[in-house]
Amino acid sequence: MIHQLAQEIKKKNAPIVVGLDPKLSFIPEVLLQKSYTAYGETLEGAADAIFRFNRAIMDAVADLVPAVKPQIAMYEQFGIPGLMAFKKTVDYAHSKGLLVIGDVKRGDIGSTSESYAIAHLGKIKVGSQEFEPFAEDFATVNPYLGTDGVKPFVDVCKENGKGIFVLVKTSNPSSGELQDRLVDGKPLYEHVADKVNDWGRDCMDGDYSEVGAVIGATYPQIGRQLREDMPKAFILVPGYGAQGGTGKDLVPFFNADGLGAIVNSSRGIIAAYQKEEYKNFGAENFADASRQAVLDMQADIQSALDHALNE
Amino acid sequence: MIHQLAQEIKKKNAPIVVGLDPKLSFIPEVLLQKSYTAYGETLEGAADAIFRFNRAIMDAVADLVPAVKPQIAMYEQFGIPGLMAFKKTVDYAHSKGLLVIGDVKRGDIGSTSESYAIAHLGKIKVGSQEFEPFAEDFATVNPYLGTDGVKPFVDVCKENGKGIFVLVKTSNPSSGELQDRLVDGKPLYEHVADKVNDWGRDCMDGDYSEVGAVIGATYPQIGRQLREDMPKAFILVPGYGAQGGTGKDLVPFFNADGLGAIVNSSRGIIAAYQKEEYKNFGAENFADASRQAVLDMQADIQSALDHALNE
Repeated sequence: MIHQLAQEIKKKNAPIVVGLDPKLSFIPEVLLQKSYTAYGETLEGAADAIFRFNRAIMDAVADLVPAVKPQIAMYEQFGIPGLMAFKKTVDYAHSKGLLVIGDVKRGDIGSTSESYAIAHLGKIKVGSQEFEPFAEDFATVNPYLGTDGVKPFVDVCKENGKGIFVLVKTSNPSSGELQDRLVDGKPLYEHVADKVNDWGRDCMDGDYSEVGAVIGATYPQIGRQLREDMPKAFILVPGYGAQGGTGKDLVPFFNADGLGAIVNSSRGIIAAYQKEEYKNFGAENFADASRQAVLDMQADIQSALDHALNE
Repeated sequence: MIHQLAQEIKKKNAPIVVGLDPKLSFIPEVLLQKSYTAYGETLEGAADAIFRFNRAIMDAVADLVPAVKPQIAMYEQFGIPGLMAFKKTVDYAHSKGLLVIGDVKRGDIGSTSESYAIAHLGKIKVGSQEFEPFAEDFATVNPYLGTDGVKPFVDVCKENGKGIFVLVKTSNPSSGELQDRLVDGKPLYEHVADKVNDWGRDCMDGDYSEVGAVIGATYPQIGRQLREDMPKAFILVPGYGAQGGTGKDLVPFFNADGLGAIVNSSRGIIAAYQKEEYKNFGAENFADASRQAVLDMQADIQSALDHALNE
């Protein structure tokens, strides 16, 4: 699957994934009221608005980007109807030719991780039948429980041609509390990076491994080091835009071929119309504002990469 | 909420939580076929069987134990119908007077953790209405992202009178890969334990904090140390039974008052009828076998605690 992602990135010239992390406050009032009129001020109403919001954005950006990354927490908070909107979002993305990175950050002891892996990337048997429960293409995985918590994901990836991104160094301010602590003279995240190499060694798919890594755009120096440490791992880079990362910060995450990283932006794209620079679009054209934000992000990254190449 | 859990443990004299982690292979064929006849060999059929299996077990043990701990991965793998069975299980547990520990092991950057906390322990606003999406009483939380990934859970607990158990030292064989690594002369899990103390300091509820810890029964020596390090944290102890922990191994997790810990058993109870020692119950009486397994576990723990007291 990682080869397909790399191909799509090249084809669209956009190492960009749109984070579909909708909050009700991002959704234009008119769209929200339409759903409330149909379903009431209920979880179903919220879920309907979220899906229609996502769909409009996917319609507007599907030709520009290779993938979307729905953050499942944003759906889980609306209970079952919210998770139904998550599933509909995954399916709709596929229907538009978009790959889906399920940002689920699951991880547990072995037998339980296997169930999570099946839920998001695999197939479950019921009697003589088989089903794909959520059917994302990639999932994010938390490594805190060690190899036996991650290995079941790797096995399911191998069986189903899917991929994972393991949390190595997250984008948030307090990520260093555990991840940066020195163990045998090097930060814990470098030990996790070593594990990512181990876990990914025997599931190569083209130039990269199905086992990638998450490293926050907010830590470009660490990104540079980890890019070298994990030459075969594709890096999923959150933290661009709203969290503070800029185009220049992204350069260290890429390989010389301009590949090897995919940058996420969520609020910066899906709620672009609420930002000063895109407010001329108006709330009713929120999806057009999202499209423009993707084009601007693409130009920002391209210019940073070009500039780095010429230095 | 932790005070209520402690009270229920005292009242029922059982520091035991039943892990509702159903696999289809645990469910008696007759029960399974009944669901397949009604819903086909579908996710709905599997989910129906799972809920009816859980319900029968809860009916059989509700007077004996204070709480159940559904592992959400086991439901998530059956997609939306599976998660509906999870929700029905939570609601049914409450109707039987059982507390619910949602074993969800969520954790993310701040704003996302807030959504997970709302999903499992809080309330979500939709227009002028408020809903409790999954409405567990406790949730398990992964600390790998540091304070800003855990704090939103603590805040939601304070607002709603709920509790969490933070993964400190997990029961699985490879938990040591990261958790045992030495940082400034002590294992990483002790640093996490320090954080648990910090996070829990201002949300006491009776003698214990709403912020508890997960420590595997498979590591009793570590349990002894951590019990001392976190005097106010209730400890959720997985790994008894099927994973290898015995009654004697549990003693270090308890305080002198016989409180401070609650021990989980999943397969050992819910699939008891499949074990040699309970097979005389027969598959049709699986819930009675579960009841007997709880009584035997209670006796095992009590005898180990009594023995320790007399030493």
